[in-house]
Amino acid sequence: MMKKQMKAAILNKPKDIEVKQVPIPEPKRNEALVKVHCIGVCGSDVHYYEHGRIGRYVVEKPIILGHEVSGTVVQLGAEVKNIRIGDRVAIEPGIPCGECAYCRSGRYNLCGAVEFMATPPYDGAWAEYVTVNSEFLFKLPDHVSFEEGALIEPLSVGFHAMRRGKVGPGDTLLITGLGPIGLLAIEAAKMFGVTEIYGSDVVGFRRDLALQMGVKGVMDPTKGDLLEQFRQVSGNKEIDVLIETSGNVQAVSDTIRLVKRGGKIVYVGLPTVNQVPMDMTAMIDAEIDMLGVFRYVHTYADAIQSLDHPLVDLTKVITDQYSLDEIKKAVEVALNEKEKSIKVMIYPNAEDIK
Amino acid sequence: MMKKQMKAAILNKPKDIEVKQVPIPEPKRNEALVKVHCIGVCGSDVHYYEHGRIGRYVVEKPIILGHEVSGTVVQLGAEVKNIRIGDRVAIEPGIPCGECAYCRSGRYNLCGAVEFMATPPYDGAWAEYVTVNSEFLFKLPDHVSFEEGALIEPLSVGFHAMRRGKVGPGDTLLITGLGPIGLLAIEAAKMFGVTEIYGSDVVGFRRDLALQMGVKGVMDPTKGDLLEQFRQVSGNKEIDVLIETSGNVQAVSDTIRLVKRGGKIVYVGLPTVNQVPMDMTAMIDAEIDMLGVFRYVHTYADAIQSLDHPLVDLTKVITDQYSLDEIKKAVEVALNEKEKSIKVMIYPNAEDIK
Amino acid sequence: MMKKQMKAAILNKPKDIEVKQVPIPEPKRNEALVKVHCIGVCGSDVHYYEHGRIGRYVVEKPIILGHEVSGTVVQLGAEVKNIRIGDRVAIEPGIPCGECAYCRSGRYNLCGAVEFMATPPYDGAWAEYVTVNSEFLFKLPDHVSFEEGALIEPLSVGFHAMRRGKVGPGDTLLITGLGPIGLLAIEAAKMFGVTEIYGSDVVGFRRDLALQMGVKGVMDPTKGDLLEQFRQVSGNKEIDVLIETSGNVQAVSDTIRLVKRGGKIVYVGLPTVNQVPMDMTAMIDAEIDMLGVFRYVHTYADAIQSLDHPLVDLTKVITDQYSLDEIKKAVEVALNEKEKSIKVMIYPNAEDIK
Amino acid sequence: MMKKQMKAAILNKPKDIEVKQVPIPEPKRNEALVKVHCIGVCGSDVHYYEHGRIGRYVVEKPIILGHEVSGTVVQLGAEVKNIRIGDRVAIEPGIPCGECAYCRSGRYNLCGAVEFMATPPYDGAWAEYVTVNSEFLFKLPDHVSFEEGALIEPLSVGFHAMRRGKVGPGDTLLITGLGPIGLLAIEAAKMFGVTEIYGSDVVGFRRDLALQMGVKGVMDPTKGDLLEQFRQVSGNKEIDVLIETSGNVQAVSDTIRLVKRGGKIVYVGLPTVNQVPMDMTAMIDAEIDMLGVFRYVHTYADAIQSLDHPLVDLTKVITDQYSLDEIKKAVEVALNEKEKSIKVMIYPNAEDIK
Repeated sequence: MMKKQMKAAILNKPKDIEVKQVPIPEPKRNEALVKVHCIGVCGSDVHYYEHGRIGRYVVEKPIILGHEVSGTVVQLGAEVKNIRIGDRVAIEPGIPCGECAYCRSGRYNLCGAVEFMATPPYDGAWAEYVTVNSEFLFKLPDHVSFEEGALIEPLSVGFHAMRRGKVGPGDTLLITGLGPIGLLAIEAAKMFGVTEIYGSDVVGFRRDLALQMGVKGVMDPTKGDLLEQFRQVSGNKEIDVLIETSGNVQAVSDTIRLVKRGGKIVYVGLPTVNQVPMDMTAMIDAEIDMLGVFRYVHTYADAIQSLDHPLVDLTKVITDQYSLDEIKKAVEVALNEKEKSIKVMIYPNAEDIK
Repeated sequence: MMKKQMKAAILNKPKDIEVKQVPIPEPKRNEALVKVHCIGVCGSDVHYYEHGRIGRYVVEKPIILGHEVSGTVVQLGAEVKNIRIGDRVAIEPGIPCGECAYCRSGRYNLCGAVEFMATPPYDGAWAEYVTVNSEFLFKLPDHVSFEEGALIEPLSVGFHAMRRGKVGPGDTLLITGLGPIGLLAIEAAKMFGVTEIYGSDVVGFRRDLALQMGVKGVMDPTKGDLLEQFRQVSGNKEIDVLIETSGNVQAVSDTIRLVKRGGKIVYVGLPTVNQVPMDMTAMIDAEIDMLGVFRYVHTYADAIQSLDHPLVDLTKVITDQYSLDEIKKAVEVALNEKEKSIKVMIYPNAEDIK
Repeated sequence: MMKKQMKAAILNKPKDIEVKQVPIPEPKRNEALVKVHCIGVCGSDVHYYEHGRIGRYVVEKPIILGHEVSGTVVQLGAEVKNIRIGDRVAIEPGIPCGECAYCRSGRYNLCGAVEFMATPPYDGAWAEYVTVNSEFLFKLPDHVSFEEGALIEPLSVGFHAMRRGKVGPGDTLLITGLGPIGLLAIEAAKMFGVTEIYGSDVVGFRRDLALQMGVKGVMDPTKGDLLEQFRQVSGNKEIDVLIETSGNVQAVSDTIRLVKRGGKIVYVGLPTVNQVPMDMTAMIDAEIDMLGVFRYVHTYADAIQSLDHPLVDLTKVITDQYSLDEIKKAVEVALNEKEKSIKVMIYPNAEDIK
Repeated sequence: MMKKQMKAAILNKPKDIEVKQVPIPEPKRNEALVKVHCIGVCGSDVHYYEHGRIGRYVVEKPIILGHEVSGTVVQLGAEVKNIRIGDRVAIEPGIPCGECAYCRSGRYNLCGAVEFMATPPYDGAWAEYVTVNSEFLFKLPDHVSFEEGALIEPLSVGFHAMRRGKVGPGDTLLITGLGPIGLLAIEAAKMFGVTEIYGSDVVGFRRDLALQMGVKGVMDPTKGDLLEQFRQVSGNKEIDVLIETSGNVQAVSDTIRLVKRGGKIVYVGLPTVNQVPMDMTAMIDAEIDMLGVFRYVHTYADAIQSLDHPLVDLTKVITDQYSLDEIKKAVEVALNEKEKSIKVMIYPNAEDIK
């Protein structure tokens, strides 16, 4: 018989996180209860932990963080038909309203009423169990690990960025910023058939990882002009599409001069200041497309299918693994050790840690 | 028998313009000689007149300006087949190379080797006659006036902007800046079936003209928050696509907060400073498309056909008409009388002035 | 106080239609009760009346037909917020599931679980009142008549066809078949900025109406080669996009030879035989796009806004008007008098007939 | 010093082909002389050999066939700048006019004045040397073999088909017909990131090769209902995009019932009869896109770059290799041995045969 209580990590206020027993949630008619296998620590989780807010989203009462989740379905609401008990699943963490103009037109990531895990006031999944609308569960094929299932979430951002930039074979791609999003964007780019992928980051460890993941060349923005470096490592290619994931103000500002005339720039990383100086005259003169990316839409099924791709390996980004009891340490590592840590993975159920 | 000499207006150096006799040019094998009927004064002409340069383009030797031209074909090169003597034509003033990757892929406006009239070192058409590659002549139907033919050039910028923004029926459109480009963008928007068109400008005369041309409402950016004004005049609509034509730094910077989530901004007007502060965080959060417009491509035939549209009237923007002998006065009016002058039209052949 | 019973026209079996009293339906929580003003007779209504079935859809029990409806909101379910009592509305007659992959991706017209008015087993609106999910009610501006509101439905098919064919200014368009759908497609084409519109039909009355509605020329397929005729009336233009609305086998088969190389053909009219001989070799050689149209999606709000367009007038297609009591006669006219009848309009509430 | 004469294979009339000495052509100002390394036998070559014509193209005087070519640049015209002597190159065999509306808009494959190798009256490259407009030479990277370079031509058809079908990761693809074009379309699909690729053909050898090249499953159309077979091998997937390469009338006719609602069908293989019975009612009801493919456009540079893709191997399709002296035997093999021969490769210069 199933237990009634579960462990969950509660953020009470900035830097005050504790693991305690809470009731296991009961799935509603259209929901499933998922036993969490593993769950990544995202930059937004770390930001809430440190500052208690991100822009207009404020932690006003204790909250469970975590939204990069995979697990096993253990209980079903009365109306659930698309999934079965025992299924291994990845969870798409944002549930849109389904009725607004954005939802109707297929851009549900822009829905104003979306309930997104670990974004106040909605709880996330740093817990042994979580309930989810079953339509947002995606069955994992046998050959896909739970870790890959959890990483579909950050991968989805890059996957959506490729679609926004209409990226395809023949394109030359530069990814600026090689944190978890940037590195997984390399894998997304491979999924879209790009063979000329370049990356830049100030951290050597990240550049090395990018090279291991198959980019053609890397640059260090602190070591001289980025365009000059790019021309050298690429043999004078031109950048068709640039994916900016760092959010660094200088990096964002630099994008316009890096891409070719008629090129595209896809912006993913949020700058920490609101006003970034941009050379709009050059942007107009070169007829550039600048395209924002907010989360992702329609990515889960397609990205999971693309894991079949023999060249793709998401798990290289996992650098640290912790139990839920070690959550504070896990978050501190993600916060402070950017020189050697990329993605920290949490295992809420003790038996799942290898 | 045809004369050998013609009048042309020569800009020797900034503010030094003179009308003198020069040889009538001889059409090459693939060119036609066009007797100019009328030709608009463009902002770029005025800028060369005042400053002798626009960015990287510098007037280093005497130049004939003017590139918004219509006229009558009077002589043909040996290989010309697409046009006949006597045809009334509009002239597309930029001749691309036809062989580079941009030309081959259909974006010839980005051709690095384009020869564009009245852009140093290439002469324009403030003259009685001009020779042009006949492939860039477009026959005017009988019901289209020479004035409309000349205005196809500035209209084309707005026409291309509509295509870049994928504008269509059902869209709500804001045009910021109601100079010649902005006002003609109203006509372009009508051509694309837009019925909800709004405009903003600091000059009352221009706002009034926009209203006469059929916009649903106008705003004055100096009279309080533009978004608040827009909501009032539109009955709380949302802006799907914004066309920025003013080049004003504040206007460019403001664009991001004006459009709806998932909206599009098309940038036409070149800011006079290179670094414009842009709220890139908001742009990413709202997943906006920011799209540059450089001149136009594939617009002439389609725009001329669209003049058939009973609602469209380009000529409302013509506020001043001068002979070629009055060219200095004409340019000074365009430079100094923005409160009451929109488009100044020049008639190089005396008999054409009505 | 409101009455409990209303008149409705019930089709018991083919050709057996009667008007009788039935209970006024009660709106559910998310529904509104609409007092029907007018409602068009569609070809599908006539087909059910005559044959009792359309393909896989079979009338197995008495059914109320009619799905081209406008009216006034008279009662609201508890949760309705987007509309108010007294609003004049057009009704979008198909309610998709909102959850399947087609609905999520914005193509809800392909939803397999759509509940579409007057398609067995779902009742339509040949009645004094009808209940509808309020999200599918669209408020009519004051300047839009109820008749125009009802005609938004058949107009939507053409409006969607224009989007499928990416039709815009500069295109030359041929519409084959000038029944209600074809004639309203003329209005849709105007909404999209097309000025070169041509039409063909075997019925002279329809061709005349097309000319009154503003097409540049018409052809009679029984009077010699259609392409030859088109070249003559158009002055040797080429067809960029062909909209086939007749469903006539010969017309469908002919489409491929009519459009230019690289052209597009949009198929709207359902052929009555399943196997149409098509010259696929020519289609491949000319790299044509052949695009199916099934109903419409996301058209109502945009089409209503486009009624603002001064050139557009839907009501020219209304040739006959009847009360609900005359429904049998109305349907017989629609069935038998194609030489002089286009759209038959029914007014279920006696006071609404002018 | 270079010799003046070369061997070339001349088709005098159907089935009458002979190898004789002809003058080595002299490159014009914008051309290069290429020493041919290898050159594939295409279905169209075989068809001219057997029948002396393909549709409107008739062999009226002796012609050199062959247009799937790679080689080494040995001499340059005076104006050539994009390529150097010694460069290993693939040759794009169709030279469009560069000036018509199709060329200007980026669809140069539809140019009516294209000069295409081995299409009467233009000679091809079954010869030791050939001259080509240098803009249509594409340098091969060191890691790309001459054989791969020659196969870029038939690969390009599939590559263009993927673009026409907007194919990408997440799509489920069926390729009907597994001859050279169909098999290379498998490689093209991989280049676009497709992981779910299925194929069908009546020849077991071709199905086996498709499996070796990485498709998920194959079907034999002679062994029962193709859709039923597909559901079994795919685990009940739906077909998003179908690429028809066989040209078989039954296969073309069947396509509509195979794809999902809203799916796309790309037609590549030319049917041998002009009138194919197509279920247009089903096509409209399912709102399908049917898209023709004529040759290819803008594929060479991108396809060559995509050869970098570690999963891609074009050379599996090469089943037979002959010297130019054996040309008649080579063509006969291509004509008669479809059970065991896919792509026959010719080596005009004796020293190149391994």
